[in-house]
Amino acid sequence: MPELRKDPIVGRWVIISTERGKRPSDFPMENRRRDIKLCPFCPSNESSTPPEIMAFRDDGSKPNSPGWSLRVIPNKFPALRIEGDLNREGMGIFDRMNGIGAHEVIIETPDHQKDMVDLDQRSMENVIWAFRERIVDLKRDPRFRHIIIFKNQGEAAGASLEHSHSQLIATPIVPIRIHNEMEGARKYFEYKERCIFCDMVRQEINDGSRVIYKNDEFVAFEPFASRFPFETWILPLKHGAAFENIKPDQVVNFAEILRDTLCRLSSALNNPAYNFVVHSSPVEIHPPYDYHWHVEIMPKLTKVAGFEWGTGFYINPTIPEDAAQYLREIKKA
Amino acid sequence: MPELRKDPIVGRWVIISTERGKRPSDFPMENRRRDIKLCPFCPSNESSTPPEIMAFRDDGSKPNSPGWSLRVIPNKFPALRIEGDLNREGMGIFDRMNGIGAHEVIIETPDHQKDMVDLDQRSMENVIWAFRERIVDLKRDPRFRHIIIFKNQGEAAGASLEHSHSQLIATPIVPIRIHNEMEGARKYFEYKERCIFCDMVRQEINDGSRVIYKNDEFVAFEPFASRFPFETWILPLKHGAAFENIKPDQVVNFAEILRDTLCRLSSALNNPAYNFVVHSSPVEIHPPYDYHWHVEIMPKLTKVAGFEWGTGFYINPTIPEDAAQYLREIKKA
Repeated sequence: MPELRKDPIVGRWVIISTERGKRPSDFPMENRRRDIKLCPFCPSNESSTPPEIMAFRDDGSKPNSPGWSLRVIPNKFPALRIEGDLNREGMGIFDRMNGIGAHEVIIETPDHQKDMVDLDQRSMENVIWAFRERIVDLKRDPRFRHIIIFKNQGEAAGASLEHSHSQLIATPIVPIRIHNEMEGARKYFEYKERCIFCDMVRQEINDGSRVIYKNDEFVAFEPFASRFPFETWILPLKHGAAFENIKPDQVVNFAEILRDTLCRLSSALNNPAYNFVVHSSPVEIHPPYDYHWHVEIMPKLTKVAGFEWGTGFYINPTIPEDAAQYLREIKKA
Repeated sequence: MPELRKDPIVGRWVIISTERGKRPSDFPMENRRRDIKLCPFCPSNESSTPPEIMAFRDDGSKPNSPGWSLRVIPNKFPALRIEGDLNREGMGIFDRMNGIGAHEVIIETPDHQKDMVDLDQRSMENVIWAFRERIVDLKRDPRFRHIIIFKNQGEAAGASLEHSHSQLIATPIVPIRIHNEMEGARKYFEYKERCIFCDMVRQEINDGSRVIYKNDEFVAFEPFASRFPFETWILPLKHGAAFENIKPDQVVNFAEILRDTLCRLSSALNNPAYNFVVHSSPVEIHPPYDYHWHVEIMPKLTKVAGFEWGTGFYINPTIPEDAAQYLREIKKA
């Protein structure tokens, strides 16, 4: 019998299609190409990108030259532009403003052969520190209301360059999905006087059936109402609304659980294409229990069709508890 | 300068990326395969589908045999099951129920070589009558809260069989996107005492820049805050919340404008893969201005990546006014 499950945060129902139950081997494999020539993200090709915003470098190496272990650059084809005024205006029932924002690329490693899953603990910590540093810097710009960090890994997930990188987009509005999560968290707090994400973490850890891995500061689990097969969330155990307030020991633990999770997904699904997104609270000050930052990882294994597009109602052919068990028991690559 | 635009109904902002501006020829073409053997939707293969629920047939032809011009069958691999009780229950903060619902397939034509765009006026009217008849029938089942009609055309849009068909899913919950549209319409009505969709229709017709075509009962236009290139909506000019209350002269005009719109998209984009979805009010009685039924057509021309998945915030590389002009001026195939 298929099952309907409701995400308690935004109220989104999903169909868990138990009878079409898909195992990891049922999904198509992602082919990795490794074409190193002409890669603008490789060392020595620094001049083919816009000048770097920041980098972690060997002592003595110069900006926009080799010698870096991580590099942040403006996106050459940005979705939003950094210069200008917002010019918010109405047009009858419609609202518009200029497309002002920041769109940056975090090149996670100089090594073209490595994916994020191949980064060592230290390199992953550096990626997280870079995320934090860029957010702290961009938060000072009063035009921005929200900053999102995300990654497209593999062609099926929308990556246009194969050299491993993440992206950051600062926007002058709060994206609707973040807004809806905050609304859900606020309503829950009004009713219960507790954070809904904290309650979810406690329930998942007590229940255990959807937990993949837990360390001192974080837990990785398959959400109860997963939209996609092997959708995985990572939440900090201690309440915190904003990612950029992460503490040094949390960085260590976050790097550890992110590496662990990506390794498990990579082993289970043979290097799948995936998206990950860091959901953090908007820039403005909100009551602290309106949000709890977290990461959502979505392997790209199924096609989204008209029903999902038209309704926001997803059909997931893999039972989250089965996916969790598989990922718990996996031998990591 | 890219532009940010807000959908007034659900409050979703989109980025109109004016500088990456894509014209129809910039999008990949969909390859049509035409493999007629073993098609379960072709005449004479009726026994390879579940028994038909209804059909439009030549006089004297028997159910589940050739002689039909349109056939409705249960989906052989349904996302939801028709038999059983809902058994709504809580599990801590989570809610679940059994996956009860109806999942039907409307085979629009016996001709394997025809897509929906190739249907003549009469056949298209019959498709619309079949949609209506199935909804009226399923509304009697008190377990169902909402019924959605949708179509996946082409592989990129999620179609698994090439023989032209639409689908219907009746669900025991109101899908989140419909719920959000109703919330938006309700808030607007509380403030203005007018239907937001009616206001949108009036503004679009007066403005004209996004209108593609209008007949006596309907208008087709590119929405102001289009999420996708060539996203097209069709709205009835007269207010109506529920699709199934469509009048006979509206059926004629709806068939005409749907054919016209699909022809224009097909000519402009070389038979693109697309999804269309009929958004109609839930089964329960609501105040009549909480909704206004409409059709959303989404050609599948771009890949959705991490940013969109993570935020619900879309980047559209085609300016809706340019798309509308293109579709207005097109010579239909």
